[in-house]
Amino acid sequence: MSQPVRDNHRPASIDALSALVADDMQAVNALIIEKMQSPVALIPQLASHLIAAGGKRLRPMITIAAALLSGYRGADHAKLAACVEFIHTATLLHDDVVDESNLRRGLASANAVFGNKPSVLVGDFLFSRAFELMVEPGSLEVLAILSRASAVIAEGEVLQLVTTNDLSTDEDKYLEVIGSKTAALFAAAAEVGGVIAGRPAEDNQALARFGQELGIAFQLIDDALDYAASQAALGKTVGDDFREGKITLPIILAYAKGSEEERVFWRRTMEDLEQDDSDLAKAQKLIEAHGTVAETVERARQRGEIAKQALNRFPDSPLRRALCEAVDFAIERGH
Amino acid sequence: MSQPVRDNHRPASIDALSALVADDMQAVNALIIEKMQSPVALIPQLASHLIAAGGKRLRPMITIAAALLSGYRGADHAKLAACVEFIHTATLLHDDVVDESNLRRGLASANAVFGNKPSVLVGDFLFSRAFELMVEPGSLEVLAILSRASAVIAEGEVLQLVTTNDLSTDEDKYLEVIGSKTAALFAAAAEVGGVIAGRPAEDNQALARFGQELGIAFQLIDDALDYAASQAALGKTVGDDFREGKITLPIILAYAKGSEEERVFWRRTMEDLEQDDSDLAKAQKLIEAHGTVAETVERARQRGEIAKQALNRFPDSPLRRALCEAVDFAIERGH
Repeated sequence: MSQPVRDNHRPASIDALSALVADDMQAVNALIIEKMQSPVALIPQLASHLIAAGGKRLRPMITIAAALLSGYRGADHAKLAACVEFIHTATLLHDDVVDESNLRRGLASANAVFGNKPSVLVGDFLFSRAFELMVEPGSLEVLAILSRASAVIAEGEVLQLVTTNDLSTDEDKYLEVIGSKTAALFAAAAEVGGVIAGRPAEDNQALARFGQELGIAFQLIDDALDYAASQAALGKTVGDDFREGKITLPIILAYAKGSEEERVFWRRTMEDLEQDDSDLAKAQKLIEAHGTVAETVERARQRGEIAKQALNRFPDSPLRRALCEAVDFAIERGH
Repeated sequence: MSQPVRDNHRPASIDALSALVADDMQAVNALIIEKMQSPVALIPQLASHLIAAGGKRLRPMITIAAALLSGYRGADHAKLAACVEFIHTATLLHDDVVDESNLRRGLASANAVFGNKPSVLVGDFLFSRAFELMVEPGSLEVLAILSRASAVIAEGEVLQLVTTNDLSTDEDKYLEVIGSKTAALFAAAAEVGGVIAGRPAEDNQALARFGQELGIAFQLIDDALDYAASQAALGKTVGDDFREGKITLPIILAYAKGSEEERVFWRRTMEDLEQDDSDLAKAQKLIEAHGTVAETVERARQRGEIAKQALNRFPDSPLRRALCEAVDFAIERGH
């Protein structure tokens, strides 16, 4: 399979990556369907509502790509990729309960359709299944990486909860939140691909770095889009972060640069959650005036460059190029 | 340490078991405190609210006792016991969110104090920590047993949700629920004690059987107490199951034996959840009239006998006797 050098005027996409991992992703998708089954019918019903709704499956693709980039020739990478997707799905289910979200991937969220209770419990089921599945390849190192990542994700989610409605949250704290809640799973997804291939620790660390920086870039863009995107393009409700008072980088920067009058506005809307119908538009206007969405995207671009550089120790190949393009895609999407 | 044969007129207690595992439980308790720490302060705050509130630590004691009964001489059993307690604590946190409970172990529940959101997320954290900790001893068999048990617990919780408010739930379905949501963890707690000691599979299966039957007995008594106990003795709100329309054995049997008029009452209160202040007392009266709490306790006694018999393949010892007394305690408590 050859891969042309990407025309810089063409929008970045994950098509090249998708094509290169397509065969293995079939095995991953089959495993996902198989392992979400249960004699308790509500479990596959609820899980398939979310899993069948699709999503880009970016995280499991990264596991597969990292394994292939590392010369892996077995079948266990598909199991680990399915684990990664299960952990991701479990956190989405719990996130939507915690955030009281009604929309996910352009569809009604599982909690909106089935209620909070089964969403919590099916999340637990998928999480447990992820661990069951990850025992099969028999790598204690992989188990250590993924269980550690799961704990870090939960820490990040709690930290996010604690910083919500708190405008004293600074950029470092914010980066701690997204580095944990989002990037830790991207990092683990990439690292275990190398570990399963038996590569030297330095290579696996480079893969982890790639995932970590990609994950941070990914979340920075998500947080920018919550103020900049159209709802149709985003597949989730625009302004969710604002309505919840989630302190993300566009807000942190706008608050830092804001006049005292603007800060009064931010405190009222983000800390006290006193918002009327015109406030989201006003928030977007302030963010636009201070250019803080653009600044957030610029930060994402920088993180993306570090991610791509981390792959430099691997020889040039269509797959390496496709992973780099996936980084660009994560940054350009929705704009 | 010697242990007198138990005087049958003395109420059963877990004091003998507690004394025999006391040294190892100190290590378990230290691990629990150590591993629930996090730079995110809300995590140990919330976790310690529940963990420090105590509880009998019956499950980790069973892991320690099973390991000692199996001749184990290392230190990894304490890690597994802490894992078991973390899994249990995580499920309690999520249960209380799902059940909207306000009382746990005689104190305000974590969700009542801290809210549902952190309870869900700290549950996820403890669950992840359990897996992190369980990787350390390096036994893939232990990992398989505990991850499988976690998935079964979640299945049982979902099945319980599905059977709630459904009076067509029969005794078999009920036993499936409690065998999964409660007994699976008791079974795994006991089994991993044997596995870590490197005992033959038959011995470990006997330990699993002991835990499974003890767990079923334990839950049968819990469900009986929800209609029979005083609130002070139970440390939780009496009548919770009734108010939620949870279909437990005292109800299943009373409904089966009930007149048509009684069935109308059960359908209104349990299926439609139309209840007024006098209905709990009326339910208790019907249950009393049909003797279904007594029948539930009798079922627990039978299960307890099977649990004790499962230990017969181990030589008589103070520890074996203490485990048998713990079974009796689980059945006699609260009466």
